[in-house]
Amino acid sequence: MMDTDMLAPDPHTIGSHGLEDLPTPCLLLDEALLRRNVFTMKQHLAALGVGFRPHLKTAKCLEVARIAMTQPSGPAMVSTLREAEFFAEGGVRDMIYGVGIAPAKLDRVGAIRKRFGADLAVVLDSAEQADAVADWVKAHGDALPVLIEVDADGHRSGVAPNDAATLTAIGRRLIGGGADLRGVLLHAGASYGLSDPEAIAAAAEAERAAAVGAATLLRQAGLPCPVVSIGSTPTARFAKDLSGVTELRAGVFMIGDLFQAGVGSCAIDDIALSVLATVIGQQRAKGWIIVDAGWMAMSRDRGTARQAVDQGYGVVCDLAGKPYPDLIVADANQEHGIVAVRPGSQAALPELPIGAKLRILPNHACATGAQHDRYHVLDASGGVTAVWPRINGW
Amino acid sequence: MMDTDMLAPDPHTIGSHGLEDLPTPCLLLDEALLRRNVFTMKQHLAALGVGFRPHLKTAKCLEVARIAMTQPSGPAMVSTLREAEFFAEGGVRDMIYGVGIAPAKLDRVGAIRKRFGADLAVVLDSAEQADAVADWVKAHGDALPVLIEVDADGHRSGVAPNDAATLTAIGRRLIGGGADLRGVLLHAGASYGLSDPEAIAAAAEAERAAAVGAATLLRQAGLPCPVVSIGSTPTARFAKDLSGVTELRAGVFMIGDLFQAGVGSCAIDDIALSVLATVIGQQRAKGWIIVDAGWMAMSRDRGTARQAVDQGYGVVCDLAGKPYPDLIVADANQEHGIVAVRPGSQAALPELPIGAKLRILPNHACATGAQHDRYHVLDASGGVTAVWPRINGW
Repeated sequence: MMDTDMLAPDPHTIGSHGLEDLPTPCLLLDEALLRRNVFTMKQHLAALGVGFRPHLKTAKCLEVARIAMTQPSGPAMVSTLREAEFFAEGGVRDMIYGVGIAPAKLDRVGAIRKRFGADLAVVLDSAEQADAVADWVKAHGDALPVLIEVDADGHRSGVAPNDAATLTAIGRRLIGGGADLRGVLLHAGASYGLSDPEAIAAAAEAERAAAVGAATLLRQAGLPCPVVSIGSTPTARFAKDLSGVTELRAGVFMIGDLFQAGVGSCAIDDIALSVLATVIGQQRAKGWIIVDAGWMAMSRDRGTARQAVDQGYGVVCDLAGKPYPDLIVADANQEHGIVAVRPGSQAALPELPIGAKLRILPNHACATGAQHDRYHVLDASGGVTAVWPRINGW
Repeated sequence: MMDTDMLAPDPHTIGSHGLEDLPTPCLLLDEALLRRNVFTMKQHLAALGVGFRPHLKTAKCLEVARIAMTQPSGPAMVSTLREAEFFAEGGVRDMIYGVGIAPAKLDRVGAIRKRFGADLAVVLDSAEQADAVADWVKAHGDALPVLIEVDADGHRSGVAPNDAATLTAIGRRLIGGGADLRGVLLHAGASYGLSDPEAIAAAAEAERAAAVGAATLLRQAGLPCPVVSIGSTPTARFAKDLSGVTELRAGVFMIGDLFQAGVGSCAIDDIALSVLATVIGQQRAKGWIIVDAGWMAMSRDRGTARQAVDQGYGVVCDLAGKPYPDLIVADANQEHGIVAVRPGSQAALPELPIGAKLRILPNHACATGAQHDRYHVLDASGGVTAVWPRINGW
């Protein structure tokens, strides 16, 4: 790559200092909140007696993964093979690649397994994919571990949980081909559309029941199903009983965001991620402050637009992370954020001169994180103590 | 960085071959369409007798920049100082950084100017910023070039075009401090909300008139204003007369996207950018095909949702780039795209087996491009002939 870093302040060399010195826009991660969110989830899951496989697709960062995982070797969940490679390099050995496998990706999966001795499993939901895996296993002599994706709630992929014929057909083709049938995997993605704790608890119970039901069908057919894996941040948060489930997966819970706050999976003051921005303009007659964090820094995610409280492109906070009353990023261009008081509010626009710095809480931690290549890590006093790299891409 | 590339197919070493061999999801750029879009715009602007300063924020790629610019040294427009550094490394010398300058960024601007001998100008719209620039110029002895941002249509930043007092106050502070007052700069961003060619032509005339009006006020006050810079892709496309304007800026026009097609700035078959995806699942009972391009590959941009035709997360095409009838990415999760026939259409869901490849046209080229770090470049026969890196970040 070209040597352009010498022109920009090099954030990898920073010591503990203030937010005022960071170039904007940039991504901030509050380590104490991250650790608190992880601790709370681990306590909850321990009380429910279920294993924990954190999803690393939100953070995409080895330092965060090490805080979230129960061991440095895992277990963990990944959403791309780039993540699998990156975390394998970092010592993670027990991973599931959670996106339905394309046959052309099997060689890359096999290379990661071989190079790192990693237990990297794949998921699938069709006999066609099972046949492709069986062919690959026969050709390579590597008993690839596989989970059958089961549809918890009709929101995306998976075999219907009561479709014994398809479940057993897939299982038999895998076993017949020499693959390692690990079990079933579900994701109650429809829970993202809920906001009532009892409704989310019911979704968690439906997810559990579907998982256990599908596992029972496999076992009744004489097929192995050691793993029963479920999870989403909302159902993880509100599950009351996980009998029959062996492991739970969740990812965004560890960082939190305004969308999850709208669902009720976290509070706004649990959100560990924010974008640091600088005031670059005033349009007082319109009630606007212009900042240098537009949608490129915040992402185009507007998930809260369909919730009870629309948070625009984010909630505006002071440097200590305290929200200004009713102040949001009301609109955004690529590199411009338009900060304004929420429609209908009587709150006053704060006096923020050119050059003042702000922190903005995001709609969606996964999407906002992906716009950046590093976290500036804050300690309990608000000082910046470290830079943690994060990855993107496939 | 860690050595993980050895596991993935290395796309930098590919020769001319087919799309079938590329790992998915990935970004495709049709070079012939790119060149046609640039040629058409240059012809149009030459006929109007105006200079051309392509905006590089969409492509963020040196190879694309060299096709778009009139000379390898520029002129060009950038949206981040990271872009300014990257393109200066690549030989671009005449640039405007188009986001209102924060005083803390002046040292980095100065470093780019000094290291590369680059004519990098900044924009501002307040006396406070002018004072900060004047102080910086006095301290560093570098007569920084500055354009005053003027508000074309109330959509974002800028001084009102008839606000002689503010325009001249800014100009005098700059000149008094030893800065190089270059002129005025406008962006008719509200044109993005239009779709009627006559209405866009009227917006272009309003942008022109505001620019010339502000320039006249500066000149009447005895201040220099050699540059009168305007531009947006829609107004560039439909402008009929640019008398008094010295240069026009536009960026997304060179690549095109579904949003610009909805505005009328391009046709769908002008769109040079697409995302290559693989079929990874079937939900035939629901009328869905699942692909491995979710919102991470497409971006969260849903710009067409507020246009006459909502294109979902993108229009689905075959490998030759021809759209399937009414087939769109109807919904998306992070790494899953849900392909379905447009609501209300009687078109049939095509038969696309597991492993089949598709191309998806994006809502917004700037946002989709930013999710990727490289373009796979297609030649006229649809072969992949090159990989062009692109940058992100600040």
